[in-house]
Amino acid sequence: MTDIAMIEAAAARAAGVVRETPLLSSPFLDEIAGRPVLAKAEVLQHTGSFKFRGGWSAVSALDARTRAKGVIAYSSGNHAQGVARAAALHGVPAIIIMPRDAPALKIENTRALGAEVVLYDRAGGEKREVIGDRLVADRGMTLIRPFDDGQVIAGQGTCGLEIAAQAALAGVTDGTVLTCCGGGGLTAGIALALEAKAPGLRVRPVEPEGFDDTARSLAAGERTGHGAPEAGLCDAILTPMPGEITFPVLKRLCGPGIVVTELEVKEAMRLAALRLKLVVEPGGAVALAAALFHGSALDDGPVICTLSGGNADPELYAEILSGG
Amino acid sequence: MTDIAMIEAAAARAAGVVRETPLLSSPFLDEIAGRPVLAKAEVLQHTGSFKFRGGWSAVSALDARTRAKGVIAYSSGNHAQGVARAAALHGVPAIIIMPRDAPALKIENTRALGAEVVLYDRAGGEKREVIGDRLVADRGMTLIRPFDDGQVIAGQGTCGLEIAAQAALAGVTDGTVLTCCGGGGLTAGIALALEAKAPGLRVRPVEPEGFDDTARSLAAGERTGHGAPEAGLCDAILTPMPGEITFPVLKRLCGPGIVVTELEVKEAMRLAALRLKLVVEPGGAVALAAALFHGSALDDGPVICTLSGGNADPELYAEILSGG
Repeated sequence: MTDIAMIEAAAARAAGVVRETPLLSSPFLDEIAGRPVLAKAEVLQHTGSFKFRGGWSAVSALDARTRAKGVIAYSSGNHAQGVARAAALHGVPAIIIMPRDAPALKIENTRALGAEVVLYDRAGGEKREVIGDRLVADRGMTLIRPFDDGQVIAGQGTCGLEIAAQAALAGVTDGTVLTCCGGGGLTAGIALALEAKAPGLRVRPVEPEGFDDTARSLAAGERTGHGAPEAGLCDAILTPMPGEITFPVLKRLCGPGIVVTELEVKEAMRLAALRLKLVVEPGGAVALAAALFHGSALDDGPVICTLSGGNADPELYAEILSGG
Repeated sequence: MTDIAMIEAAAARAAGVVRETPLLSSPFLDEIAGRPVLAKAEVLQHTGSFKFRGGWSAVSALDARTRAKGVIAYSSGNHAQGVARAAALHGVPAIIIMPRDAPALKIENTRALGAEVVLYDRAGGEKREVIGDRLVADRGMTLIRPFDDGQVIAGQGTCGLEIAAQAALAGVTDGTVLTCCGGGGLTAGIALALEAKAPGLRVRPVEPEGFDDTARSLAAGERTGHGAPEAGLCDAILTPMPGEITFPVLKRLCGPGIVVTELEVKEAMRLAALRLKLVVEPGGAVALAAALFHGSALDDGPVICTLSGGNADPELYAEILSGG
């Protein structure tokens, strides 16, 4: 189980590779929120999202012989890119298993980051797990799960260590930390880091309307799904249910979940561009949306929000900036 | 005259206020350029451009009694915002003299940053200098010039100190530093800092096609204009001629100027959004455009480019991201 010692060990392995991302602010955002807002710019992490932290942590934690055989991930998104880049920087192979109908740009980017992409036919009933299991069995490769993995959570926790230190420098020791929450890896990692290093900062996970499995699970006290349709604007964080490993951490350490609308997410994306000069993808903007538009759900005091990823589809992004 | 001691003094006054902006990279940009590209993300500075460095330096260098009377700037752009914010953070008044036909958003932003905006009728023949001189005489306010000011140049030089330290950490001690060049304040400041701290890094100023007064002046060995029309995409850096104080520094320390097209600037803006997750305004993207598309004009080896500002007009920015 991930603990602060694992997070600190992940941080030591990450030194000089994982970027310390800045904690940014703007008086214009403070004005809208009616309180100080600090934004943790994970869009500036390698591969454009916090997922590189977890990927690097997991790959670097393997013993050298195991690592040399390579790693596998199932993903068409930020986790794939994070694992691919972490493997490439270690000089070991990575295979990313992606659906054949994934956007061409994502397939191309993942290859360009040095990974071998294996496509499977989702519509035709192929199972990615079968392909993955075969690679594990035949080639001794290691599967890196996107959030239910102790070393991945430890890697995401390095973001929490940075938040604790940077918030203290900014004079913030009491307040709310809003996280963009899918499976809960980032949220759990940050919550564990803050428990040890900044106990006055309380984590509140944020999700898009309709995909509020974490908020429901926290309210129910047990893992539950959301029953929403499959597709939504915030594709990076649309998981069906909190993780088995992550949820107990969230239950122990986090305040209630917060739910934002897609309109609020788009407005947060526009404000991040205008006021912070950052490109943020929909799933990476939910926490800022909560900071700006859901203040009544928060305790008084400053708020820190993760801008967790910036890999927006360029056409969709341009459309949203145009007011779409 | 600005020297390294003034720059280091400016850095000491800036500690804890001016942001140390990250030096970012992307394997995708390296691939396009065919060499390592490091981007100095000044868009993340307070007020969205490096101009806050110079504004803070100039305001903080005043003696307390003079400063208390307030400061003035002529500008409708980044310099105005930098000075306004620096004055507000010092708790002293700022008056920004702007043309009545300046974009409403710029006027509003400058006011929101705490400055009093005095509008003048450019078309009707009013002279901003007359208004400024009166405020200096009547109220004892101090005019802060955008580039021909020793303390402003010293402030911009703090960006050069950071580049020297960050490049060394990245293992880069020999290479080219491309600067977005208008009046030459940033270019001169960086060149002076690197002369002292990283003499293996040579500065090359970059300008947009048609507005190449610095390139022409460097070629001629004396200050000369460009004779281009008044308007252009890269509005933040369209000065008629290099500064009186800045040019001798550029002449002594910089390599030849580089000129990029507006099409190259737009492509650099799109790539900065896609690969670095940064919003860059046209004038802030010329150095990246040179790094990506003018490699044949550069010495071999790594290149560092300033992304000097991110205050793009939102509509224009969305249009450029859409391929316009």
